[in-house]
Amino acid sequence: MLRIKMIIEYDGSNYHGFQRQDNAHSIQAEIEEQLIKLTGEVINITAAGRTDAGVHARGQVIAFNTTSSIPPTQWALALNSFLPRDIRVLNSNEVNLNFHPQFQAISKQYVYYLYRQKPGAAFYRKYALCTTEILDINDMRLACEQIIGRHNFQAFCASGSSAKTFDRTVTQCTIEESGSLLRFNIEANGFLYNMVRIIMGTLLEVGRKRIAADDVIKIIQSRDRSRAGPTAPAHGLYLLSVLYPNNIK
Amino acid sequence: MLRIKMIIEYDGSNYHGFQRQDNAHSIQAEIEEQLIKLTGEVINITAAGRTDAGVHARGQVIAFNTTSSIPPTQWALALNSFLPRDIRVLNSNEVNLNFHPQFQAISKQYVYYLYRQKPGAAFYRKYALCTTEILDINDMRLACEQIIGRHNFQAFCASGSSAKTFDRTVTQCTIEESGSLLRFNIEANGFLYNMVRIIMGTLLEVGRKRIAADDVIKIIQSRDRSRAGPTAPAHGLYLLSVLYPNNIK
Repeated sequence: MLRIKMIIEYDGSNYHGFQRQDNAHSIQAEIEEQLIKLTGEVINITAAGRTDAGVHARGQVIAFNTTSSIPPTQWALALNSFLPRDIRVLNSNEVNLNFHPQFQAISKQYVYYLYRQKPGAAFYRKYALCTTEILDINDMRLACEQIIGRHNFQAFCASGSSAKTFDRTVTQCTIEESGSLLRFNIEANGFLYNMVRIIMGTLLEVGRKRIAADDVIKIIQSRDRSRAGPTAPAHGLYLLSVLYPNNIK
Repeated sequence: MLRIKMIIEYDGSNYHGFQRQDNAHSIQAEIEEQLIKLTGEVINITAAGRTDAGVHARGQVIAFNTTSSIPPTQWALALNSFLPRDIRVLNSNEVNLNFHPQFQAISKQYVYYLYRQKPGAAFYRKYALCTTEILDINDMRLACEQIIGRHNFQAFCASGSSAKTFDRTVTQCTIEESGSLLRFNIEANGFLYNMVRIIMGTLLEVGRKRIAADDVIKIIQSRDRSRAGPTAPAHGLYLLSVLYPNNIK
């Protein structure tokens, strides 16, 4: 028995999120179905994080056990020939049998894209939030600075979350402008349900001057979801990468 | 009666090309259907060029007659609220009643994208030819230089073309590298059926060293389609813009 870790990317547009569910097609179901075809084994995969419907991944991490004789580094090539082209395995290697892609992660990085120009929106419609509204980027950056650090993020957590604690440590929270794209980067030791999209929705309200940049720390302290901004749409969000301790490849 | 000219962009992925046809959804049919909803009129639109299934447009030009009282510059806003988000009107204005978007065009510009890295291919799969093969870009550029000028391009024309003459003048033919993207630019006073895709397919053969860069001029002179490369896939191709005399807005 081997345990295989894979880094995968996917365009989430045509899936109802990562997690397998009844009556809707998921990334997990698609990969497990192709693993059966490739290996003949019924394989259950575990992921670093369950992305929602429409959310994309540039560096999702999955792991599974197998008795297949496919060499660990050859799984990318082998499985990609079965997978649809909107899911790609970027690399694969063997890991310890006790490796868990979610519980052993040190941190995760997400990005959220805004596309801020009318020409080109037909192409970005599923890959960024397309908006030409005027935004105060400086104010948004001031708000980002208040998000960094260890906080109780209950105000930025969707209801129905099963989280035991709302404390998370945000280590990076920045905005980069590159031509017509605005890229929001966030890294934390973990994220609550919809946390990145609610932070993005709040930053947009700051950019629109509907929430004062200085008030973001007060919203965090309030622990009150109703004081934060709306949940930004799924299609601008990408799980960029998952970081592990140095002894895990 | 007014004549309206519009610049439009579209993601061609979900359409069977520009031109209306039975039993398949086209850009033309989609726009004409939404024009009926907007105006109540049955409007027939004419385009600068008929893009094939899967081909995209950043600057297609269409024109139509209407008795609607919508101000000429307001059509973009009005029609965009009816159109699906993969077709966008970028701007609109009134033109002379005898304006024809194809026959009065001086030249057209197309671009063709190659995406040359494995990570990211899940997102570029419908918007560029994704390939990690090694290509000799210098040789491809030498080949481009031979394409510039007035030539009989029959060797680069798909069979079944109804063209009366195969003579076309290529005024620009260049390759730009930008990170993982390779962008092929071509401008001519007109294009034969599949001409850009056959030129691109030939340049790829040059990049692969299967056709010598110096032989491209001989292929042109042969007027023999079988000596040129295969037709490159549709999804890397974009109609970028259509140029008109200065007196046409």
